[in-house]
Amino acid sequence: MNRQTHTADWIAVDWGTSRLRAWAMTRSGAELSSGASEKGMGVLSPEHFEGALMDVVSPWLGAGTVDVVCCGMVGSRQGWVEAPYATAPCQALPEGFARPDVQNPLLRVHVIPGVKQTSPADVMRGEETQIAGFLSLNKNWDGVVCLPGTHTKWAQVSAGEIVSFQTFMTGELFSLLSAQSVLRHTVAPTGWDDDAFATALDDAMSRPEATAARLFSLRAEDLLNNLDGAAARARLSGLLIGAELAAARPYWLGQQVAVIGASTVSQIYGSALTSQGVPATIADGPRMTLAGLTAAYKSLNS
Amino acid sequence: MNRQTHTADWIAVDWGTSRLRAWAMTRSGAELSSGASEKGMGVLSPEHFEGALMDVVSPWLGAGTVDVVCCGMVGSRQGWVEAPYATAPCQALPEGFARPDVQNPLLRVHVIPGVKQTSPADVMRGEETQIAGFLSLNKNWDGVVCLPGTHTKWAQVSAGEIVSFQTFMTGELFSLLSAQSVLRHTVAPTGWDDDAFATALDDAMSRPEATAARLFSLRAEDLLNNLDGAAARARLSGLLIGAELAAARPYWLGQQVAVIGASTVSQIYGSALTSQGVPATIADGPRMTLAGLTAAYKSLNS
Repeated sequence: MNRQTHTADWIAVDWGTSRLRAWAMTRSGAELSSGASEKGMGVLSPEHFEGALMDVVSPWLGAGTVDVVCCGMVGSRQGWVEAPYATAPCQALPEGFARPDVQNPLLRVHVIPGVKQTSPADVMRGEETQIAGFLSLNKNWDGVVCLPGTHTKWAQVSAGEIVSFQTFMTGELFSLLSAQSVLRHTVAPTGWDDDAFATALDDAMSRPEATAARLFSLRAEDLLNNLDGAAARARLSGLLIGAELAAARPYWLGQQVAVIGASTVSQIYGSALTSQGVPATIADGPRMTLAGLTAAYKSLNS
Repeated sequence: MNRQTHTADWIAVDWGTSRLRAWAMTRSGAELSSGASEKGMGVLSPEHFEGALMDVVSPWLGAGTVDVVCCGMVGSRQGWVEAPYATAPCQALPEGFARPDVQNPLLRVHVIPGVKQTSPADVMRGEETQIAGFLSLNKNWDGVVCLPGTHTKWAQVSAGEIVSFQTFMTGELFSLLSAQSVLRHTVAPTGWDDDAFATALDDAMSRPEATAARLFSLRAEDLLNNLDGAAARARLSGLLIGAELAAARPYWLGQQVAVIGASTVSQIYGSALTSQGVPATIADGPRMTLAGLTAAYKSLNS
């Protein structure tokens, strides 16, 4: 492929707190190239966003101005430009993209708004684009979308709208407990045990009110019975995901569920839901993000 | 007070993971002096315990050998000498103190064993001494002892024995979530709001299975409604303590409860229990430790 074929018709950008990922795209939505950097929103002040973007996308620029469509924390108050939240219920792809000031005349940057919910208070930035991507690939789909990650979201979707949603800190709790609490001596940094996960999940789902009592037992079983570190890791995950599934039951019970996320964690949620008799479709997170950014690009010109 | 009056008949030591606290005592159990250092078990290898102890207690040594009675993590496998766990149900002050090798002929060191429970697996080191201290000051007391802290313990006590107990990681969860999770942007490092605490406590106790869903709402309410940082701090505490109290209900329901711990956290647990119609006696943690060490010293010579 020569240099010329890499010139993008438009550029898709997923810009989160810790990472920037960009794709050079054709008008019809095909991917020409991709790139990434660690210059997430969390390490940038407003004047440095344009340079961080150029570091990744400059090889894809030609003679004319291109649209750059961004989602994620880049649109937060501490980001490049604030893209005020749309309020649920609302279209998964909210209107009113924000436009930061840009020096380079080759770039026309659009930032997709996040979505907020008034009561109970909740917010998302980036997941709305993944949901929009999933809906663009699955027309007229109604159901519940689960987006596992650092902060897992559950969203009720109907007629192309995000009706309601709820965030769980399960991924962040797992990281903190496994790496920074007293359980770090017990929980292995890698490894897995399906049976240990399943048992802990059942435990937590059948008596979620006792979850707070079960965490330290991992440490105690290690001290008294040399609990295997991989089993401990799977049990901690099972307890936390079980507590989440119990609290999210009003979302998934009797619904069709789509799980959108990274492969490993999506499989874990998918099998947990299946064990509850809920069939779950698994969709790849980055692919849904790109589909959502593509839908947003198309809406610019419609 | 001259140098002579500081010579100890015996020395009491509370030696935890992060701190050493020692008291110069008379034979009858009166306190002559006290000292402390940051040389906790967590920063010492076995050959350095004696020096760390001498740094604090050397001013109290006279011509003869004194008993030094220690409790806490100093008796763990990673400590000075392993004092194997007694198995509950057992006396609050278990028999079989461990004796580390000591170079200095003026020191005769005794380490109180911790207590373990086989099923559900659980362990304590140090709290058994506080319970023994409380029982030495409250003869024939039966009921439930709550020891709030980094790892809060609930213990059922009857006829001088620890019958069963359970550990909750509530204090550590509060530290991790308030200082290291996304909630650090929302939760103030100090400050309090009684109403916010009470409401969150009620919420968590009435629907503990939904606790996992409530944590992120603190962040969302901050972003959307500028939630006050002190109120957020009290709400986080209320959610976590509420989830603990819900899981510990089999311990405290219909029981008399003694709360042993630092003043602020003990008052919080005491008022939470009172709000549930459970009268709670509050006892000072360090004072109970010293009473327990005194009971242990007396048992040496009985």
